Amino acid sequence: MSKKPLILVTNDDGITAPGIRTLIKVMNLIGDVVVVAPDSPQSGMGHAITINESLYCKEEKINDGPQKEYSCSGTPADCIKLAVHELLKRKPDLCVSGINHGSNSSINVIYSGTMSAAIEAGMEGIPAIGFSLLDYNWNADFSSLEKYIMKICLMVLKSRIKKNLVLNVNFPDPKMSSVKGIKICRQAKANWIEKFDKRKSPMGRDYYWLTGEFVNQDEGKDTDEWALKKGFISVVPVQFDLTAHHHINELKKWDLND
Amino acid sequence: MSKKPLILVTNDDGITAPGIRTLIKVMNLIGDVVVVAPDSPQSGMGHAITINESLYCKEEKINDGPQKEYSCSGTPADCIKLAVHELLKRKPDLCVSGINHGSNSSINVIYSGTMSAAIEAGMEGIPAIGFSLLDYNWNADFSSLEKYIMKICLMVLKSRIKKNLVLNVNFPDPKMSSVKGIKICRQAKANWIEKFDKRKSPMGRDYYWLTGEFVNQDEGKDTDEWALKKGFISVVPVQFDLTAHHHINELKKWDLND
Repeated sequence: MSKKPLILVTNDDGITAPGIRTLIKVMNLIGDVVVVAPDSPQSGMGHAITINESLYCKEEKINDGPQKEYSCSGTPADCIKLAVHELLKRKPDLCVSGINHGSNSSINVIYSGTMSAAIEAGMEGIPAIGFSLLDYNWNADFSSLEKYIMKICLMVLKSRIKKNLVLNVNFPDPKMSSVKGIKICRQAKANWIEKFDKRKSPMGRDYYWLTGEFVNQDEGKDTDEWALKKGFISVVPVQFDLTAHHHINELKKWDLND
Repeated sequence: MSKKPLILVTNDDGITAPGIRTLIKVMNLIGDVVVVAPDSPQSGMGHAITINESLYCKEEKINDGPQKEYSCSGTPADCIKLAVHELLKRKPDLCVSGINHGSNSSINVIYSGTMSAAIEAGMEGIPAIGFSLLDYNWNADFSSLEKYIMKICLMVLKSRIKKNLVLNVNFPDPKMSSVKGIKICRQAKANWIEKFDKRKSPMGRDYYWLTGEFVNQDEGKDTDEWALKKGFISVVPVQFDLTAHHHINELKKWDLND
């Protein structure tokens, strides 16, 4: 490459999270880095955008390094929109989101602020990757992931993934085992069995905390859950055309116009 | 049907919105209705869930009728989780969300709180439909939609749509033309060209409003945008397995384990 690639970095845990600091460090080795990330944690925000409030954006210097950094009061998807349409002079060559503190495998992709940022970038035509680590600990060991992040990002920059596609990369918990390799997977069929913890406020008003248990019903060896359990890094290609194309002909048999 | 179906109703415009009141009215003709809807507008919330705050839930009586109603302080996806795992005694036979005040066609499905509620219900294995009207007006004419809503809901109850699938139904603006019929469609390829309206607060701090223009790049006659423009009701089957299955083999050619 004659010119350095322009790389946009974001996350959903907030601009000061150790996960994004690791990602910035690796991206500084590959290209010119601009960080636009939430000023506070935004986990579970899915693909929310801010339409009824205004957004604040502030230049920051969290760590030394050549990167340019901005914090934003909005959601991860807002950060991408603000970066692409207001802050950056040209379209980035790559967008990376994360490293998320906690898993975004299987059905969790749909609730994930980390992945919504990657998806928003993909919708803008930017090659994009979300990274997550199966360890919720704020001080998790991210350093062992650096070489894999580098490899995946260089491959995406070289191979240009297809439009209408982003990558969801999950790392197994480094405390559990050493990394066995990288597997291309499909997302496992799983769901959350929710439990609501019902409490009474000091003023006598009922309220609930959402808690739940993740249940994997899918034993397929081609799934992300299987790969992660066996110590592999899972890479799932994620689409944002939500049309179930394979069901259109079936629905056309319905007599909706009679 | 020997027993009346149990129907869960929600939306993202809030429990008092005219759109949901129309939906409740029609659902009361079909089954036993339980409403669990946000206590305030939640547009643009995507698939956000509330994990860092608690949720309030309150029994309500907004309109006369046999329906049971609850307002919830959370997002549309929270409402479904709370209904299914805490408030309802059995799994509903149908979940309907809307009628949204404004379009959720094309790429807007991904930002839509209305559709995230339908998708969350689908993830719970409940046949689910999101309804939206291409008119943002709070006092839009919803009455002309009632017969079509009835028809689509009865068809879904009779035919049992496949698991892993929900329907995204958009109605053309009744001010523009009379309804020509119902079309099964794919979502059009479109995007938002965002503009940020930059302002200065009285305290001298810069802030932004997100504004944007929806640009349809897809002239396909099999798309929702085409159908709506021509006066048809669009019905798009929506999936929530986000895996781009058709790209897995291509990615496997990458030398990620060398």
